[in-house]
Amino acid sequence: MAERIVIALGGNALQAKGRAPTAENQLEVVRRTAEQIAEVSRRGYEMAIVHGNGPQVGQILQAGEAARETVPPMPFDVCGAMSQGYIGYHIQQALRYALSVRGRNIPVVSLTTQVVVDRRDPAFGNPTKPIGSFYTAEEAQQLAQEKGYLMKEDAGRGWRRVVASPRPQKIVEIGSIRLLWDQTIVITCGGGGIPVAENADGTLEGIAAVIDKDYAAELLAEEVNADALLILTEVEKAAIRYNQPDQQDLDHLSLSEAARYVEEGHFGAGSMQPKIEAAMRFARNNPGRRAIITSLDKCLEALEGKTGTVVTFS
Amino acid sequence: MAERIVIALGGNALQAKGRAPTAENQLEVVRRTAEQIAEVSRRGYEMAIVHGNGPQVGQILQAGEAARETVPPMPFDVCGAMSQGYIGYHIQQALRYALSVRGRNIPVVSLTTQVVVDRRDPAFGNPTKPIGSFYTAEEAQQLAQEKGYLMKEDAGRGWRRVVASPRPQKIVEIGSIRLLWDQTIVITCGGGGIPVAENADGTLEGIAAVIDKDYAAELLAEEVNADALLILTEVEKAAIRYNQPDQQDLDHLSLSEAARYVEEGHFGAGSMQPKIEAAMRFARNNPGRRAIITSLDKCLEALEGKTGTVVTFS
Repeated sequence: MAERIVIALGGNALQAKGRAPTAENQLEVVRRTAEQIAEVSRRGYEMAIVHGNGPQVGQILQAGEAARETVPPMPFDVCGAMSQGYIGYHIQQALRYALSVRGRNIPVVSLTTQVVVDRRDPAFGNPTKPIGSFYTAEEAQQLAQEKGYLMKEDAGRGWRRVVASPRPQKIVEIGSIRLLWDQTIVITCGGGGIPVAENADGTLEGIAAVIDKDYAAELLAEEVNADALLILTEVEKAAIRYNQPDQQDLDHLSLSEAARYVEEGHFGAGSMQPKIEAAMRFARNNPGRRAIITSLDKCLEALEGKTGTVVTFS
Repeated sequence: MAERIVIALGGNALQAKGRAPTAENQLEVVRRTAEQIAEVSRRGYEMAIVHGNGPQVGQILQAGEAARETVPPMPFDVCGAMSQGYIGYHIQQALRYALSVRGRNIPVVSLTTQVVVDRRDPAFGNPTKPIGSFYTAEEAQQLAQEKGYLMKEDAGRGWRRVVASPRPQKIVEIGSIRLLWDQTIVITCGGGGIPVAENADGTLEGIAAVIDKDYAAELLAEEVNADALLILTEVEKAAIRYNQPDQQDLDHLSLSEAARYVEEGHFGAGSMQPKIEAAMRFARNNPGRRAIITSLDKCLEALEGKTGTVVTFS
């Protein structure tokens, strides 16, 4: 039977560093990304794709803020939904083509996806994710008063709104994802999903929060009973003593080794650490299965066990 | 067996006239709309939903234009994809709840949907759909030169970009729609679909065009072999001599009657006429099946044959 994998695509799979963040430039990068993913499909893997949305949702938010005199700005959950449409469209268009030239006429579709978070998540007590434009101290104070935003000074560059990054609890559209899985490549949980909270009356309510897309991909991998979680980033392998003369790349991590390195602070808080933690969670809840952290261009070799950092239960 | 219907939602199902076009106001209207649709589902109909996006995509485009100094503006196809995310998110969130309080736990999901148009469509010879902001004559000339936009003077209010409104030829994601149909309420072809053209090398390319959502709904209805096409708008019935003292509401139209009234110019070019024409096309290609034009709050009665304008082959 085909191996089932969930692929989490990092920012470098969507936009090129140092180039203007235009839609045209994104599409160019996404087309190259699609070539790699189509190769994985050609080897017979079944897959779903989760993508990040940090720069894109930031742009949508900033455009809305800059245009606020003309058009009412969209709330952050809606910006997330818009970014899913934007990025999903590019991926599905590019991937459909990359598959078709390989003789694989597999449907590809992206789903607008809501992900439930828990209002009691401790993350809400300590919002850490800056979003949107920079403001002066005065403007920041005004926004805090008028809109109730939490504003923080960002490394000398000005004041920004910060929101919480709670854990994903439930993928609202999981039923549709399961129906499509066998015959379709589904793009879902884009940007970690549109964050929604459950009210007492059963309604869902969009909230301003950022769900880490690697955690959302991990949750999806569990929900679809995936054989592997493949987290793609800029480096071929995670490393300890990263960027130091004695940097050591990691081929394999058991849960206990991974926990020790996390404890020792080897991984960047906003970058490698959530990937390691998502990988650990998958390995812990799925003994015998593996999570792999590697780069986009090594993903096929990594799936074949030739490179990447593989995290397993023991 | 359950009747299968495709519902096309007009602008009034998404936003209230005379109120600010904020996301919060839209969600409020969409929740009421979802109540009606959930009732239709409760009576056992299977359905897919197509929605318009005129005001929303206009807002996204205008925000982008107003913010162009800060953030690169998105091309029109991407704005369409973003509007699908925005509107689809609201509909799926509201409809899921409206279904759940009726004990119907049917998945609801919106798909980012591309619709192929033909570059040789005669509509490209005569672009008629104004999009985005108003400009002065000077600005308009500059945009025409720099970007190759076709700019037209809009009823004394200034200059606007106009794009073509070609017919939908093919729904790219139809395979996924078919996989979901039986067990899911699919929201698809939002805004008529993201317009794409097929290049000689097989790639799809997003283009600046507006596909009429009623035509897209009609195409979808044929593709899924629907029993009925239900076009929801502001009026309970289409009429001849509309808004004149001798206005006559229409209960039933055969193809030949409908063609005669279209010929006589009874229907508004940008409003009722495309609905009548979409209904005619469905009736022509599906003898024995019906297209219905009615208002949102009468949709159930209309499906039961008690009201609305019903268009059939003969």
